Amino acid sequence: MPIVTIHITREGTEPGADAATAEQKAALIHGVSKLLLDVLDKPMESTFVVIDEVETENWGWGGLPVEQFRARRRSRDSE
Amino acid sequence: MPIVTIHITREGTEPGADAATAEQKAALIHGVSKLLLDVLDKPMESTFVVIDEVETENWGWGGLPVEQFRARRRSRDSE
Amino acid sequence: MPIVTIHITREGTEPGADAATAEQKAALIHGVSKLLLDVLDKPMESTFVVIDEVETENWGWGGLPVEQFRARRRSRDSE
Amino acid sequence: MPIVTIHITREGTEPGADAATAEQKAALIHGVSKLLLDVLDKPMESTFVVIDEVETENWGWGGLPVEQFRARRRSRDSE
Amino acid sequence: MPIVTIHITREGTEPGADAATAEQKAALIHGVSKLLLDVLDKPMESTFVVIDEVETENWGWGGLPVEQFRARRRSRDSE
Amino acid sequence: MPIVTIHITREGTEPGADAATAEQKAALIHGVSKLLLDVLDKPMESTFVVIDEVETENWGWGGLPVEQFRARRRSRDSE
Repeated sequence: MPIVTIHITREGTEPGADAATAEQKAALIHGVSKLLLDVLDKPMESTFVVIDEVETENWGWGGLPVEQFRARRRSRDSE
Repeated sequence: MPIVTIHITREGTEPGADAATAEQKAALIHGVSKLLLDVLDKPMESTFVVIDEVETENWGWGGLPVEQFRARRRSRDSE
Repeated sequence: MPIVTIHITREGTEPGADAATAEQKAALIHGVSKLLLDVLDKPMESTFVVIDEVETENWGWGGLPVEQFRARRRSRDSE
Repeated sequence: MPIVTIHITREGTEPGADAATAEQKAALIHGVSKLLLDVLDKPMESTFVVIDEVETENWGWGGLPVEQFRARRRSRDSE
Repeated sequence: MPIVTIHITREGTEPGADAATAEQKAALIHGVSKLLLDVLDKPMESTFVVIDEVETENWGWGGLPVEQFRARRRSRDSE
Repeated sequence: MPIVTIHITREGTEPGADAATAEQKAALIHGVSKLLLDVLDKPMESTFVVIDEVETENWGWGGLPVEQFRARRRSRDSE
């Protein structure tokens, strides 16, 4: 009966993909449902998973939209 | 002052609709606001309702994306 | 498969109760599940409801903790 | 380590914009991260902010989709 | 940078425990962070996990508080 | 009409306090409501704020419960 919500940015990690692929989403859904079965003995049929993809301009970290935060971090690391 | 969030999959139940219609959404908003008035005496003007429509590939049930879960269930039922 | 989350303040509406009663919560759960059946044809067994009770000092409205907001509103109304 | 979620309707306040602009979103992200630093001494690098934009037909207030609620309120005010 | 929220009922699965134990929670946190690393290549240091434990009377399934729903299901299964 | 949810760990920053104080919560509520007024011109009376305090053992970062994550980080920094 657990409910798991996964918030990720909408962006790709595979070449040519601009978002998580259907295969990656299926792997997240399976993995987290299996985890709840293994750790808390929750039957997989009683777990709901919702993946919420957030535009990068709507995600903030370090007081900045996340793309700017990452750029700043990269520029620091390369100094 | 209640806040109600309703997560549903983005898919239609009316012919030709690929999502809940504006009329269905209005019925959900009215119904749940009325329920909070009836049960907890909350004035309707103090209830916020947010409907969050989730793509079916982003919704997991039984360790699978929900379309696959439904297909598996139908195939079992027809055995 | 819908998920409904209901945020309410933790406070009573019945004499002697300092929170929604188990009966009131059951009425919310039944009512909202029935609504999703009526409006979107969702089977009741596929709807999850979570009621999240929030301490009044953790709830803000009008830029104030909600008890102060209500007190201000009442004092305005009685002028 | 705080997580702040900001739900707003998807609509513009600037001329020609039909949604909050990237600048407005950046201002929300910066402002709320700074607030958590000032009030609770949380380092800005440990705060995540998610802005969730909701279609107006998915937002309910006063038992109505929000556009209808506003129209009703304006018509009352002008009587 | 993902945020994962896990809603579970507050009840024990270990003898003598009336809630998930600290060890079980740590296993959920580790497992889901590892999953996001494996599937989407998200560094573990950038994933936040929040476990939200919900009283059973605040959790609804099948239009009933979950304890009643389970009791009904068990009584059906034993017929 | 915005809804802002602020998730923080339940722990104190003031001497003798084991959680955010009522004054700190009021400052968060006021600050974030004011921010939405300044940036998006949202009237303060139409903003709801919910502060959700999470036990530290229910908060994960870096694949660990947050207390362990902080301890590891401190021990690294002191090497």
